[in-house]
Order: sequence, then C-alpha cells, then structure tokens
Amino acid sequence: MSGPEGLRLNTEEQCYMPSSPTIGRPVAVLGIGSMGTAIAKALIEAGHHVTVWNRSRERLAGLTGCFVAETAVEACRDAEITFTCFSNLPATYDVLKQPGVVGALQGKALVPMSTATPDEVHGFQRFAQASGIDYLDAKIAVTPAQIGAPTAVIFFAGPQALFLRVEPVLRALAGRATLMGQRIDGAVLGDFAFLSVYFASTIGILHGAAFLRNSGLNIEQFFGLIPCFLDEINARSQSFRKMIVAGDYTDVQSALKTDLAGARLLANATANAGMQNLFSDALIELMQDAVAQGHGDLDSAAMVQAFSKIMSTPQPVEVPG
Amino acid sequence: MSGPEGLRLNTEEQCYMPSSPTIGRPVAVLGIGSMGTAIAKALIEAGHHVTVWNRSRERLAGLTGCFVAETAVEACRDAEITFTCFSNLPATYDVLKQPGVVGALQGKALVPMSTATPDEVHGFQRFAQASGIDYLDAKIAVTPAQIGAPTAVIFFAGPQALFLRVEPVLRALAGRATLMGQRIDGAVLGDFAFLSVYFASTIGILHGAAFLRNSGLNIEQFFGLIPCFLDEINARSQSFRKMIVAGDYTDVQSALKTDLAGARLLANATANAGMQNLFSDALIELMQDAVAQGHGDLDSAAMVQAFSKIMSTPQPVEVPG
Repeated sequence: MSGPEGLRLNTEEQCYMPSSPTIGRPVAVLGIGSMGTAIAKALIEAGHHVTVWNRSRERLAGLTGCFVAETAVEACRDAEITFTCFSNLPATYDVLKQPGVVGALQGKALVPMSTATPDEVHGFQRFAQASGIDYLDAKIAVTPAQIGAPTAVIFFAGPQALFLRVEPVLRALAGRATLMGQRIDGAVLGDFAFLSVYFASTIGILHGAAFLRNSGLNIEQFFGLIPCFLDEINARSQSFRKMIVAGDYTDVQSALKTDLAGARLLANATANAGMQNLFSDALIELMQDAVAQGHGDLDSAAMVQAFSKIMSTPQPVEVPG
Repeated sequence: MSGPEGLRLNTEEQCYMPSSPTIGRPVAVLGIGSMGTAIAKALIEAGHHVTVWNRSRERLAGLTGCFVAETAVEACRDAEITFTCFSNLPATYDVLKQPGVVGALQGKALVPMSTATPDEVHGFQRFAQASGIDYLDAKIAVTPAQIGAPTAVIFFAGPQALFLRVEPVLRALAGRATLMGQRIDGAVLGDFAFLSVYFASTIGILHGAAFLRNSGLNIEQFFGLIPCFLDEINARSQSFRKMIVAGDYTDVQSALKTDLAGARLLANATANAGMQNLFSDALIELMQDAVAQGHGDLDSAAMVQAFSKIMSTPQPVEVPG
C-alpha cells in the first residue's frame, strides 16, 4: 500500500478499506485531541486519504486507516484541505509558524476549528490573506461523539466558492455543515447563537432534575420525557420564527406576563424545596425586564425585542486569557 | 341519534362518526377555552361519548360530535370521567359548588387540569376526599395545538389504581400521559420541572435569534437548525442522567469552568453587538456560583449539586394573586 512519500501507514490491516479514488480526497488533520480524533475518524470512514499529525504520538494509537506524519509540514504538503483542531487560535499559529508550513498551505484550503472570538478570526483572516492560504473558518456545535451524525451542526464562514469546493468533504463531518455567510466572523457568531440555546437549555434541564430530586421525585422519568419536552420547545420555536420574521407578536400563544406568573410560581416551589433561587430569579429578571419594556401582553417571542434593545453606553465584558 | 336525556347534540351530520361502543366511554369536559376545546376534540376523535359545558356558549360553536349540556351538573351526571379546564382551581371550585355538581361526581373520576400550586392541590385533595370524588390531578406540559400528539406530555398524580382505570382515555390526550407518583402534588412538581426546561430553552432560543439579528445575520438559517441543536441537547441530557444517577461528575464531557469561559465570550459578543447583557450575565452568575462551590473541574452536570444546596434560611417568594 503506497502513501505520500515518507509517511508511515497507521493501520491494522483488517480495518483498512482502500478509499474509492472517485470520492477520496487528500486531507490533513493537525491536532489529534478528542475532537481531532473524531474529525479524522469521520474523514477516514468517508473514504478520504487522511494524514494526521500531533505534537505527541500517544493520541494517534487509536487511529487506523490513515497516514501519520512526523511533522506538520509533512502532513499538509499533499493535502487539498487541512483541518486544525487545536484548543485555540494562538496554539494554531504556533503550529502554522513551524518552518515550511505556510508555504505548504499556499493555494489550499485551511479550516481551523478552534474556539475563537470575532477579533481573532479577523486577525486570522489577515494572516491567511497575507500568506495566500484559502481560509474557511469553522466552529463546531456538537461534542466529538456527534461528529459525522446527520443532525450534527458545524458553522462555516468564508468565500462561498471555497465552501462549495470543500463541501462534500465537510458533509462527512456534519450532516448540517452550514455556511453562515461570507463574512469571516459568521461561524463564530452562529456558534454564539448555538451556545445561547445550549447553555440555557442544559442549565434548565439540570435545574429541573435538581428540583425533582430535592422534592423526592423520580428523575429517571423526567429524563425519559426530555425528548418530548424538546419536541414541544421545537414546535414553539417555529412559532417564534414566524412572529420574529413578521415583527408581529400579537398572535399570542403564551403571553409574557403569563410566563412571568409561571416563573414566580416556580421560584416559590424551588424555595419551598429548600433550593437556592438563582435560576428562577434569573428567569424572573429577564421576563420582568421585557414586561417593563411594554411587552407583557404580547407573546413571549417579544423577548427578542427586549434583548435587542441598544444600550446607550455599551459595556464590553473583559474576557480572561 | 340518542344522547343523555335533555342534551342537545352538537354536530354537523357530515362530521359525526358514531363511537365504537367497545372503546367509547362517557366523559365530560367543563370549561371550553382553547385548552378545553383541544381536550374535547381529542376525546371526540378517539371515539368517546363527550359532553361539554361552558359558562358562555360562544366557544362551543366549533365543537362537533359531542353533546352540549345546559348546566355543569347535567354534563357530569352520566360521565365516568370529568375533565375541568378552567384557568385556576378557585375558578374550578366556583363551578363544582353549583347545586348538585358534587353529588353528580361522587364515586367518579375528576381530573382538574388547571395551573395550581402544591398547596392548592393539597387543599383540593381534602375537598375531594370529603366529597367522595376520585381526584386525579393533571398538569399539561404542551400547548393546545399539541394535545393528542404521541409526544405530548401530561403529568398526573393520584392513586395508581385510579390512573390505570382512566389511562386509556388519557392516552387520547397525550401519548406521554405520565403518572408522576401517588402523592397528589406530583403533577404540579413535574410541571415545574418541565417549566425549568421550557422557560430556559425558549429564552435561550430568543436570545440566540436576537444576537444573530443584531449582528446582521440570517435568523431563518438559525431556526432551521433548532431541531439539530435540540438533538445535541438531548444527547447531552442523557449523559447528565447517567452522571446524576451515579453521583459521579468526573467523566468530564465539558467542564463547568470551560462552559463559564464560553459564557464570558458570549457576554463579550452580545455587548459588542450593542445588546443588553441580562441573559449572558445570568448564565455567568449561575456557572460562577457552581464553580465557587468547587465544581469547576467537574462536568457541567455537577450544576445539579449547586442548585440542590440547601439554604440555611429558606426565603419563600411571594406569589401574586
């Protein structure tokens, strides 16, 4: 079995399926942590010619059916697309600044998948443009276990032509590989919108479980119903969509002031269960703010208006590190 | 077509399907608002012999295939199960105290579906026991549009034998008709746990939409991805379940302190988008509290421990009305 020159084939023979030349494309994955491993495995499974590189070799043992490069430059030299899976963009720069790497990436697609801020991706765009690298930003909205799933979401941002060029490969990673726009911060912003939903929902689930447990009730039953709750929330979100697009919140399915009354009952119940009230207090504060802005009789979807209120003096929050 | 004596059949002939006597059971629905209408329609569609009553007659026009009673007592006299769909328990008492109603309900199942507090359902239990009425409490975790759906959740509480007696009828209302326990406040508590998830998730969705709109990005794309986000949240919740049951949060999928760093990035991004920061500040406060309790290096599921912290001096929250 021949691979790119000088590369060691990492395979247990019984697992290795030679890729179909009609679909297999040469790709590299730099940074083989838990996410990099999932990315590499999904690409291998889809029949691509995958070369991986990681600073330490221990993490590579579990990967079969791919080539292992000794250096980053060796990994991306023959790759049409290079995915980087480091913990952040500074760590990504460290690798890209190794001798020869930028040269090896020129004219090819580079897809960094690290967490980043809008400022950081703008900076990375300047670096990529100056280096002649085709930069497609990516932000992953799933855990490693969900990589490759039909419902997995990865946000992308960058030139549409570049996205279309690599899209068939991206589909192997996420059934819902989504170009959020050609502006380079689109993926970061899409991921923040996902995090709004993800953080709030998971905290709500944990609070519900804590409440039942503190009340002496069965949490297995509760967790068994979560898919049904999420179905109901999905149905509700589609009504939100219609109202927000129309800018009309008067077709009330549930009025904001009714929800506020419900949140107050919840606060009372959690206090009676001997729990701290940070969670329900936060719900009440958010709803009260929207009611104070005059949306109480409207559908709760009108909270989108309350959140959108432009402050006269924006207060940037300091980000550590 | 003969009905209970003195009852007017409310039907357009072309819509009326006589119920199969093998499955049709005589039931009553008191209070025909939007939820009562949905309940009555689902029962009619399932082939039950439904009699409805409402204080005003206007709301009854849309209901066909059922009998309309002139009084509440007339409606429940021959019903094996009476569902009440008033806005709260005080309004329910008002109807039950009409002459003859309590007598008509003796030895039969009464299922009040109003919003209520644990104290109120305990009071209602005393009333039902003193009156010889078989009381099964119900709390509805879906909008009227979802009544009858296979994934619709309605929580019930009361004697298991009573639940089993009426369960086939309840299944017509909600595929996931769930007995939360024999203690009478079980349905109320289950509904509060649902509200934790529902309020937090819907607010998270509205905040995500507001963020994208304020950033000049497409919200249609975002709403199209909501089912995928909820899939990811469901997968995560099943890992929460395992950790909470085991009481072990050390198999970290996402550490609490990592989520806190993400919430801080979100706060910075919303501030930069010119939005008010109530939402992200609330996330940060909740996560910081759990980190301060020593859970920062554990999986975020450990927030369930932070919520459960017993306060030394519980502060009941005043509930209006």
